[in-house]
Amino acid sequence: MPTPPYYAVIFSSQRTEAGPAGYEAAAERMLELARTMPGFLGVESARGSDGFGITVSYWDSLENIRRWREQAEHQTAQRKGREIWYARFELRICRVEHAYGYDAGRR
Amino acid sequence: MPTPPYYAVIFSSQRTEAGPAGYEAAAERMLELARTMPGFLGVESARGSDGFGITVSYWDSLENIRRWREQAEHQTAQRKGREIWYARFELRICRVEHAYGYDAGRR
Repeated sequence: MPTPPYYAVIFSSQRTEAGPAGYEAAAERMLELARTMPGFLGVESARGSDGFGITVSYWDSLENIRRWREQAEHQTAQRKGREIWYARFELRICRVEHAYGYDAGRR
Repeated sequence: MPTPPYYAVIFSSQRTEAGPAGYEAAAERMLELARTMPGFLGVESARGSDGFGITVSYWDSLENIRRWREQAEHQTAQRKGREIWYARFELRICRVEHAYGYDAGRR
Protein backbone atom coordinates (compact mmCIF):
# COMPACT_ATOMS: atom_id res chain seq x y z
CA MET A 1 0.00 0.00 0.00
CA PRO A 2 1.39 3.45 -0.85
CA THR A 3 1.92 6.31 1.58
CA PRO A 4 -1.30 8.33 2.04
CA PRO A 5 -3.17 10.07 0.60
CA TYR A 6 -5.09 7.41 -1.29
CA TYR A 7 -8.77 6.42 -1.29
CA ALA A 8 -10.93 3.85 0.50
CA VAL A 9 -14.41 2.56 -0.28
CA ILE A 10 -16.03 1.29 2.92
CA PHE A 11 -18.89 -1.06 2.05
CA SER A 12 -20.84 -2.31 5.07
CA SER A 13 -23.70 -4.69 4.42
CA GLN A 14 -26.26 -6.97 5.96
CA ARG A 15 -26.68 -10.17 3.95
CA THR A 16 -30.09 -11.70 3.39
CA GLU A 17 -30.23 -15.48 3.67
CA ALA A 18 -30.86 -15.69 -0.09
CA GLY A 19 -28.57 -17.26 -2.67
CA PRO A 20 -25.46 -18.12 -0.66
CA ALA A 21 -23.75 -20.11 -3.47
CA GLY A 22 -24.41 -17.42 -6.09
CA TYR A 23 -23.26 -14.77 -3.66
CA GLU A 24 -19.99 -16.51 -2.86
CA ALA A 25 -19.21 -17.04 -6.54
CA ALA A 26 -20.02 -13.43 -7.40
CA ALA A 27 -17.98 -12.06 -4.46
CA GLU A 28 -14.99 -14.09 -5.60
CA ARG A 29 -15.44 -12.98 -9.21
CA MET A 30 -15.73 -9.30 -8.20
CA LEU A 31 -12.48 -9.61 -6.24
CA GLU A 32 -10.76 -11.15 -9.27
CA LEU A 33 -12.15 -8.41 -11.50
CA ALA A 34 -11.26 -5.55 -9.12
CA ARG A 35 -7.63 -6.69 -9.15
CA THR A 36 -7.52 -6.07 -12.91
CA MET A 37 -8.85 -2.50 -12.61
CA PRO A 38 -6.55 0.52 -12.93
CA GLY A 39 -5.65 2.08 -9.61
CA PHE A 40 -6.69 -0.87 -7.45
CA LEU A 41 -4.44 -1.02 -4.38
CA GLY A 42 -5.97 -3.76 -2.23
CA VAL A 43 -9.02 -5.04 -0.38
CA GLU A 44 -9.90 -6.45 3.01
CA SER A 45 -13.12 -8.04 4.14
CA ALA A 46 -14.79 -9.55 7.19
CA ARG A 47 -18.27 -10.94 7.81
CA GLY A 48 -19.61 -12.30 11.08
CA SER A 49 -22.00 -15.16 11.68
CA ASP A 50 -24.84 -12.60 12.01
CA GLY A 51 -24.44 -11.80 8.29
CA PHE A 52 -23.11 -8.28 8.86
CA GLY A 53 -19.94 -7.60 6.91
CA ILE A 54 -17.49 -4.84 6.04
CA THR A 55 -15.38 -4.77 2.88
CA VAL A 56 -12.87 -1.98 2.35
CA SER A 57 -11.23 -1.56 -1.05
CA TYR A 58 -8.36 0.85 -1.64
CA TRP A 59 -7.77 2.93 -4.77
CA ASP A 60 -5.35 5.53 -6.06
CA SER A 61 -7.98 8.08 -7.15
CA LEU A 62 -11.66 8.98 -7.15
CA GLU A 63 -11.59 8.66 -10.93
CA ASN A 64 -10.60 4.98 -10.72
CA ILE A 65 -13.27 4.33 -8.07
CA ARG A 66 -15.80 5.74 -10.51
CA ARG A 67 -14.50 3.43 -13.25
CA TRP A 68 -14.89 0.42 -10.99
CA ARG A 69 -18.42 1.44 -10.01
CA GLU A 70 -19.34 1.74 -13.71
CA GLN A 71 -17.63 -1.46 -14.88
CA ALA A 72 -20.30 -3.50 -16.71
CA GLU A 73 -19.99 -6.85 -14.92
CA HIS A 74 -19.73 -5.04 -11.59
CA GLN A 75 -22.95 -3.15 -12.39
CA THR A 76 -24.76 -6.46 -12.89
CA ALA A 77 -23.47 -7.64 -9.52
CA GLN A 78 -24.57 -4.37 -7.89
CA ARG A 79 -28.08 -4.89 -9.24
CA LYS A 80 -28.20 -8.45 -7.87
CA GLY A 81 -26.89 -7.12 -4.58
CA ARG A 82 -29.92 -4.86 -4.26
CA GLU A 83 -32.38 -7.47 -5.56
CA ILE A 84 -31.14 -10.59 -3.80
CA TRP A 85 -28.14 -10.53 -1.51
CA TYR A 86 -28.34 -7.45 0.71
CA ALA A 87 -31.04 -6.43 3.16
CA ARG A 88 -29.22 -3.10 3.49
CA PHE A 89 -25.86 -1.55 2.87
CA GLU A 90 -23.92 1.66 3.32
CA LEU A 91 -21.17 2.78 0.99
CA ARG A 92 -18.67 5.48 1.93
CA ILE A 93 -15.94 6.96 -0.22
CA CYS A 94 -13.04 8.30 1.82
CA ARG A 95 -9.66 9.90 1.44
CA VAL A 96 -7.10 8.08 3.60
CA GLU A 97 -5.07 10.74 5.42
CA HIS A 98 -2.89 8.68 7.78
CA ALA A 99 -2.10 4.98 8.07
CA TYR A 100 -0.02 2.82 10.35
CA GLY A 101 0.30 -0.83 11.15
CA TYR A 102 1.55 -3.26 13.73
CA ASP A 103 2.77 -6.81 13.25
CA ALA A 104 3.69 -8.90 16.29
CA GLY A 105 5.79 -11.12 14.07
CA ARG A 106 8.01 -8.17 13.16
CA ARG A 107 8.58 -6.77 16.67
CA MET B 1 -24.88 10.04 10.61
CA PRO B 2 -24.35 13.60 9.31
CA THR B 3 -23.81 14.59 5.68
CA PRO B 4 -20.11 14.28 4.70
CA PRO B 5 -17.47 15.41 5.26
CA TYR B 6 -16.77 13.62 8.54
CA TYR B 7 -14.03 11.20 9.57
CA ALA B 8 -13.61 7.43 9.74
CA VAL B 9 -11.06 5.30 11.56
CA ILE B 10 -10.69 1.95 9.79
CA PHE B 11 -9.16 -0.60 12.16
CA SER B 12 -8.48 -3.99 10.57
CA SER B 13 -7.00 -6.67 12.77
CA GLN B 14 -6.06 -10.30 13.04
CA ARG B 15 -6.89 -11.71 16.48
CA THR B 16 -4.55 -14.09 18.23
CA GLU B 17 -6.25 -16.98 20.02
CA ALA B 18 -5.24 -15.45 23.36
CA GLY B 19 -7.59 -14.15 26.04
CA PRO B 20 -11.00 -14.38 24.36
CA ALA B 21 -12.99 -13.51 27.52
CA GLY B 22 -10.80 -10.52 28.38
CA TYR B 23 -10.92 -9.37 24.79
CA GLU B 24 -14.71 -9.52 24.57
CA ALA B 25 -15.10 -7.59 27.82
CA ALA B 26 -12.58 -4.94 26.75
CA ALA B 27 -14.14 -4.57 23.29
CA GLU B 28 -17.54 -4.02 24.87
CA ARG B 29 -16.11 -1.53 27.38
CA MET B 30 -14.30 0.42 24.63
CA LEU B 31 -17.55 0.69 22.69
CA GLU B 32 -19.34 1.99 25.80
CA LEU B 33 -16.51 4.46 26.41
CA ALA B 34 -16.31 5.65 22.79
CA ARG B 35 -20.01 6.55 22.90
CA THR B 36 -19.26 9.03 25.71
CA MET B 37 -16.47 10.79 23.77
CA PRO B 38 -17.03 14.18 22.12
CA GLY B 39 -17.57 13.96 18.38
CA PHE B 40 -18.35 10.23 18.29
CA LEU B 41 -20.82 9.56 15.45
CA GLY B 42 -21.09 5.77 15.32
CA VAL B 43 -19.29 2.47 14.87
CA GLU B 44 -19.67 -0.74 12.90
CA SER B 45 -17.76 -3.96 13.26
CA ALA B 46 -17.47 -7.44 11.74
CA ARG B 47 -15.17 -10.36 12.46
CA GLY B 48 -15.10 -13.67 10.61
CA SER B 49 -14.42 -17.14 11.96
CA ASP B 50 -10.80 -16.83 10.74
CA GLY B 51 -10.23 -14.10 13.36
CA PHE B 52 -9.84 -11.29 10.85
CA GLY B 53 -12.00 -8.28 11.68
CA ILE B 54 -12.73 -4.73 10.61
CA THR B 55 -14.08 -2.02 12.92
CA VAL B 56 -14.90 1.41 11.53
CA SER B 57 -15.64 4.26 13.93
CA TYR B 58 -16.93 7.62 12.75
CA TRP B 59 -16.03 11.03 14.20
CA ASP B 60 -16.74 14.67 13.57
CA SER B 61 -13.10 15.83 13.51
CA LEU B 62 -9.46 14.75 13.56
CA GLU B 63 -9.11 16.54 16.89
CA ASN B 64 -11.74 14.29 18.51
CA ILE B 65 -10.10 11.18 17.00
CA ARG B 66 -6.87 12.29 18.67
CA ARG B 67 -8.69 12.70 22.00
CA TRP B 68 -10.08 9.18 21.75
CA ARG B 69 -6.68 7.74 20.89
CA GLU B 70 -5.20 9.46 23.95
CA GLN B 71 -8.01 8.60 26.39
CA ALA B 72 -6.35 6.88 29.38
CA GLU B 73 -8.44 3.70 29.59
CA HIS B 74 -8.31 3.36 25.81
CA GLN B 75 -4.51 3.62 25.94
CA THR B 76 -4.40 0.69 28.36
CA ALA B 77 -6.57 -1.32 25.97
CA GLN B 78 -4.32 -0.37 23.04
CA ARG B 79 -1.29 -1.68 24.94
CA LYS B 80 -3.06 -4.97 25.71
CA GLY B 81 -4.05 -5.15 22.05
CA ARG B 82 -0.39 -5.13 21.04
CA GLU B 83 0.72 -7.45 23.84
CA ILE B 84 -2.07 -10.03 23.83
CA TRP B 85 -4.99 -9.76 21.44
CA TYR B 86 -3.72 -8.84 17.99
CA ALA B 87 -1.24 -10.67 15.78
CA ARG B 88 -1.32 -7.63 13.50
CA PHE B 89 -3.43 -4.63 12.73
CA GLU B 90 -3.70 -1.67 10.39
CA LEU B 91 -5.23 1.64 11.35
CA ARG B 92 -6.28 4.22 8.79
CA ILE B 93 -7.67 7.68 9.43
CA CYS B 94 -9.86 8.90 6.59
CA ARG B 95 -12.01 11.81 5.58
CA VAL B 96 -15.42 10.58 4.37
CA GLU B 97 -16.20 12.46 1.15
CA HIS B 98 -19.41 10.77 -0.05
CA ALA B 99 -21.86 8.36 1.54
CA TYR B 100 -25.01 6.61 0.47
CA GLY B 101 -27.11 3.73 1.66
CA TYR B 102 -29.70 1.21 0.59
CA ASP B 103 -32.35 -0.49 2.68
CA ALA B 104 -34.56 -3.16 1.09
CA GLY B 105 -37.16 -2.58 3.80
CA ARG B 106 -37.58 1.04 2.65
CA ARG B 107 -37.90 0.46 -1.10
